[in-house]
Amino acid sequence: MNKGFTGLPINIFRERIEKIKQELLKRDLDALFSFSDEYRPGYTVYLSDYYPINIIEESPQGVYISRHGDVVLFLGSINAQTAKGISWIKDIRSIEKMSLFFNKLKEKEGRRLKIGLVGEALLPVKYYYKLRSCLENHDFINADDIINKMRQIKDLNEIKLMEKAAQLGDQAIREASKRLREGNVKEVELAAVAEYTIRSNGGNIGSATILSSGINTMKPTWRPSNKRIMPGEAVLIDVNPSLNCYCSDVSVTLFNGRVSKEKQKLLDLSKEILHGVIKYIKPEMPASAIYDYFLEKVQKVGYEKYFTPYANGFRAVGHGVGLDVVEWPNLDSKSNFILKPGMTLAVKFDLHGFNFGGIRYEADVLVEENQCRSLNNIIYEDL
Amino acid sequence: MNKGFTGLPINIFRERIEKIKQELLKRDLDALFSFSDEYRPGYTVYLSDYYPINIIEESPQGVYISRHGDVVLFLGSINAQTAKGISWIKDIRSIEKMSLFFNKLKEKEGRRLKIGLVGEALLPVKYYYKLRSCLENHDFINADDIINKMRQIKDLNEIKLMEKAAQLGDQAIREASKRLREGNVKEVELAAVAEYTIRSNGGNIGSATILSSGINTMKPTWRPSNKRIMPGEAVLIDVNPSLNCYCSDVSVTLFNGRVSKEKQKLLDLSKEILHGVIKYIKPEMPASAIYDYFLEKVQKVGYEKYFTPYANGFRAVGHGVGLDVVEWPNLDSKSNFILKPGMTLAVKFDLHGFNFGGIRYEADVLVEENQCRSLNNIIYEDL
Repeated sequence: MNKGFTGLPINIFRERIEKIKQELLKRDLDALFSFSDEYRPGYTVYLSDYYPINIIEESPQGVYISRHGDVVLFLGSINAQTAKGISWIKDIRSIEKMSLFFNKLKEKEGRRLKIGLVGEALLPVKYYYKLRSCLENHDFINADDIINKMRQIKDLNEIKLMEKAAQLGDQAIREASKRLREGNVKEVELAAVAEYTIRSNGGNIGSATILSSGINTMKPTWRPSNKRIMPGEAVLIDVNPSLNCYCSDVSVTLFNGRVSKEKQKLLDLSKEILHGVIKYIKPEMPASAIYDYFLEKVQKVGYEKYFTPYANGFRAVGHGVGLDVVEWPNLDSKSNFILKPGMTLAVKFDLHGFNFGGIRYEADVLVEENQCRSLNNIIYEDL
Repeated sequence: MNKGFTGLPINIFRERIEKIKQELLKRDLDALFSFSDEYRPGYTVYLSDYYPINIIEESPQGVYISRHGDVVLFLGSINAQTAKGISWIKDIRSIEKMSLFFNKLKEKEGRRLKIGLVGEALLPVKYYYKLRSCLENHDFINADDIINKMRQIKDLNEIKLMEKAAQLGDQAIREASKRLREGNVKEVELAAVAEYTIRSNGGNIGSATILSSGINTMKPTWRPSNKRIMPGEAVLIDVNPSLNCYCSDVSVTLFNGRVSKEKQKLLDLSKEILHGVIKYIKPEMPASAIYDYFLEKVQKVGYEKYFTPYANGFRAVGHGVGLDVVEWPNLDSKSNFILKPGMTLAVKFDLHGFNFGGIRYEADVLVEENQCRSLNNIIYEDL
């Protein structure tokens, strides 16, 4: 076993590098440069097994892979020291000096190189300028899809980690729900309980916890506030832990104290629809089937107007989940990719705009050989 | 009072805009565009009073200020909805369409504009490309220093918030230290206690908690692990809460259980040196005096080799602290700026490379009219 942050065996990383080599040859690219940082680390943790730390200017990470399979890890000076003995990659260099490295490549190779660039959406202009000084020597071509496509299908080792992360997400919601039942609690306190559960079990917070209550559940996203949760209010809990760098994205909605029959019906309906879609999803379906299923179900009960503003928004009805809480691809009405075994997707059902606020149910699902199953148990539990 | 995330009165934001207008005129710039995201939010929270949320592709925030004082807030679609009624800025637009806005400016103004750009170190290439499509119409010129210089000097309202954040940092360390004294605890559990204290009091985690023990204190930065903290081991606790968007960066080192006389002497020395420098700092000194003071003290006891590897690294002996945990300027041997009343600095004393690991003491200090004082009390307490 590896000492890296995912704990995955080194041979998995070597196989990934091998696959990338093949893809570079196929595309006539000389090399790949993959970039990310501590806040959306997937594009590099996937290759380095190192999860950087210490704020956005110091945590940028780059992995360079030549078509011959040479691998170089670029990090800030502080992370470079910590990464020694953690990443399986032995050639660790300063990311501040990466233009030097790229410029020397021309001398070494004796020609202009075509380099695939992954992670442009994260790469700050500061580093781009460093690369730009190399643009006279090389061509950089967006190649996000090489890594996106590989990351999209999880292998058995990764699925085990995804299951552990999902269990941790469930546990966090369970503890927050227990605290809610004790009564007299603020949004921030409930978020703190969920995060304590995650952190004390060795997890990290993959992306900010959303915990809203009452009218705050109207907002599409929310920082937990000092608002006290009042009797009868809806409470939306959306937690995003990572464990061994693999993430879970799971949400439930509860009511504080007694629930009216009408609201209970809404909760039951939302859970039923989420359970239903998980049964419905099969490999080889187009991903838009998820949106279509939701739309049909809400139309049937006349709830379309509570569903569509959310469903049409960014990230609509879900997204890929894995090394990042949110990763490629996106799930919406236009998602025309085909569902394949090994895909892990956060599937999200939202109903918002009621007088009391709104409801969200979300679980991570795994597409298997003949079916789909939820990695989260919490959506089947009574809280 | 304002309903924004800092709680500062709106007139403070209006005064900031007014100052920027003056500076734009002085520099013959037509406008300023300031950029950041949820992970290093200072460059925009300073202007919008809105703290974005929801992962790096959705949380980018831009504030546009014309030389006439028109202000536009650019956000992702989800944050745009949440920001309504929170930011004092009423003109909120989609950051995905900002190139449209900039291109229309040319029609409106009838000429090419000179626009100051703030936050290039954070701006992803993705957004840069959007701006680049406007480069035919306008010139973008790095203007980080306009906002850096303004943010550097805190007013009385900001200092009150910095004090509250510092108290929260102290409390987090106090609670972690109590838990350590109870015995049988892992690094992650101790970090979870510190973060629970922060979160349940309405704080956010400004940057990742560093909590290392034993040999892990050798690493310059560290993600708290499942390692159990053994008797006699050093424990380095470095917490970075934000409260009302203002941050604290504070660190102490403890020993688990009984401390040998030798190690106690080291701790006492480190605290004494940090206390000493706070007494020593006066306004109108060059900032390098902080490094020089530390160096002189460690040379006196022959500890130079335990000090210099850290002191020469990135962020050396400290940095500005405020809306970001780490903000401009940097404190090291070459810091030639002059200390001024209203500056808040995280001052950091490190000794590392002993057999047991290393020691860090760090506090946020405020430069006042005739003196300097620590905003953190924890460095004066016996833990």
